[in-house]
Amino acid sequence: MTMSNTGGRRRPPTIHDVAREAGVSRGTVSRVLNGGHYVSPAAQEAVDAAIRRTGYVVNRHARSLITGRSDSVGFLLTEPQERFFEDPNFNVLLSGCTQALAAHDIPLLLMLAGTKDERRRITRYITAGHVDGVLLVSSHSGDPVAEELRGAGVPLVQCGKPMGLRSKVSYVAADDRDGARDMVRHLLSLGRRRIGVVNGPLDTPGGVDRLAGYQEVLTEAGLPVDERLVVTGDYSRASGEAGTERLLARAPDLDALFVASDLMAQGALTALRRAGRRVPEDVSVGGFDDSTAATEAVPALTTVRQPYDRISAEMVRLLLAQIAGEEPAAVILPTELVLRDST
Amino acid sequence: MTMSNTGGRRRPPTIHDVAREAGVSRGTVSRVLNGGHYVSPAAQEAVDAAIRRTGYVVNRHARSLITGRSDSVGFLLTEPQERFFEDPNFNVLLSGCTQALAAHDIPLLLMLAGTKDERRRITRYITAGHVDGVLLVSSHSGDPVAEELRGAGVPLVQCGKPMGLRSKVSYVAADDRDGARDMVRHLLSLGRRRIGVVNGPLDTPGGVDRLAGYQEVLTEAGLPVDERLVVTGDYSRASGEAGTERLLARAPDLDALFVASDLMAQGALTALRRAGRRVPEDVSVGGFDDSTAATEAVPALTTVRQPYDRISAEMVRLLLAQIAGEEPAAVILPTELVLRDST
Repeated sequence: MTMSNTGGRRRPPTIHDVAREAGVSRGTVSRVLNGGHYVSPAAQEAVDAAIRRTGYVVNRHARSLITGRSDSVGFLLTEPQERFFEDPNFNVLLSGCTQALAAHDIPLLLMLAGTKDERRRITRYITAGHVDGVLLVSSHSGDPVAEELRGAGVPLVQCGKPMGLRSKVSYVAADDRDGARDMVRHLLSLGRRRIGVVNGPLDTPGGVDRLAGYQEVLTEAGLPVDERLVVTGDYSRASGEAGTERLLARAPDLDALFVASDLMAQGALTALRRAGRRVPEDVSVGGFDDSTAATEAVPALTTVRQPYDRISAEMVRLLLAQIAGEEPAAVILPTELVLRDST
Repeated sequence: MTMSNTGGRRRPPTIHDVAREAGVSRGTVSRVLNGGHYVSPAAQEAVDAAIRRTGYVVNRHARSLITGRSDSVGFLLTEPQERFFEDPNFNVLLSGCTQALAAHDIPLLLMLAGTKDERRRITRYITAGHVDGVLLVSSHSGDPVAEELRGAGVPLVQCGKPMGLRSKVSYVAADDRDGARDMVRHLLSLGRRRIGVVNGPLDTPGGVDRLAGYQEVLTEAGLPVDERLVVTGDYSRASGEAGTERLLARAPDLDALFVASDLMAQGALTALRRAGRRVPEDVSVGGFDDSTAATEAVPALTTVRQPYDRISAEMVRLLLAQIAGEEPAAVILPTELVLRDST
């Protein structure tokens, strides 16, 4: 990128402008800013006058240089921008983190990096020290951004359990497996026996752990785990709709659906309606999240509540602790089954 | 805020750590980083060794200090966070700006500042030099953030015509008045004579100019401008619904509605449906924006297309020019009437 640094009248003055104005080297200005060691009285006076004339804000960057801090935190989402706007979970998480940081008077910078190039650019920005730490919302395993930031020593807290590398990593997650167990037990208690799953991607902890909870409960109940009853979506509404269509084609006798996000469950309801299946009479449908997608669905969704208010508060707490020098920690929070009209 | 800077093992090393490790003052480290003037060979060697041992990234902040640039741009929205997620216009604008900046390899930082405290925090962050310039999306006049940033010499381009102060301000806007004129002429051409308006706030340029266009066309057609036919919303869906209810109570004989945003028009459709008015048979409804809210509405909305792709491209172009030292400029882009099922 080429952005000229000269000629602007409205642009804030830089250390270069001060040096030019004072007729000294940039190094001399820097030494004045850093306490005036090894600077002659004449040069000191020239620089002081130039600072006044140019309106240079002394601690514009120097404060960051001195303290090593920007007094700000990034909220980094490594998902496509469309998902950010579609999925109400992000709004709730972002709002919770903003509020938790507000109590410390720390601004939150939102960083959407869904493509490889966007991730490269934002990693460069972060590792240049423009934020003190990062709240990372990234569902997929092996996210190179997480590895890079960690490698560069950037304080980092992930939302959701990172897959693979787990030691020395701060994260906050809901108990996905336990939440899935609650939902599947609920569906069994209604007399359902052919329970389909529209799962999250298997490179996400939610995808792995919710499926594990489902399989455990079926096995404990002495029921077979039928591979035809499991499809994988990407947490988008469209993938819930398409996945349910595949399930209905493969297992027309299904009598319940456990869908790993409320947004995908909205898609599932659309597919079931089109197939002429009544919810909950013919097919009971359970979601996951308890987002606005659950209450806005018709019928309103029985779901597993993720405690997003606590998740965001804990993420911020862990990040500030890490910025202050504490070791990483993981926090797992319990979920809650919420019964509505879809089961 | 109190964030300790000591004791952390995973936190990136600062200039303080290097000084401590080298057994020299921070000023000495700074002088080494700035070229080694006035530093003894022994001190230089100690600092070099300390930099290697601590893993201090030399240009972490120093590069910003030297160049005066962060190589990044902020996208600042001074609206409540809910509006950001609700209104599809922001998604489109953000996406367009991200893409236009990507061509220059510049990352975009998203800043949501709906409250006074959030605006204070983000202004502090921006004026500290963590971004080189700001794309400001703020519908209301007299936005103190715009004034403050401008006062601090931060390169700034606004989306939409700023009210009041207009000289020396960069902005990109659609021709709101002309767009409104097109829509009202279209409604008149359908034989409609009692045309209600759900307007935007009168402290927004859209609110002022779209209403002016409406009044002009009515006057040109020899029709009276009836105050009972005009209500004001805040561009949210809910305000479009409430405003239409007020209009129906005041002027039950209205036969058309010009609604100043597609999202408000969705609310208007809801209110009309509840009142038993058929669209377009009983009431023709025209929106503004041509966002996804227009195509997703039932019936699909006739609307005024804002050229958001061009708006975002021009905003980025003007901002980069301003960062490079050029004077501000304003760009006004034409709108286009898009006919669909609601008229």
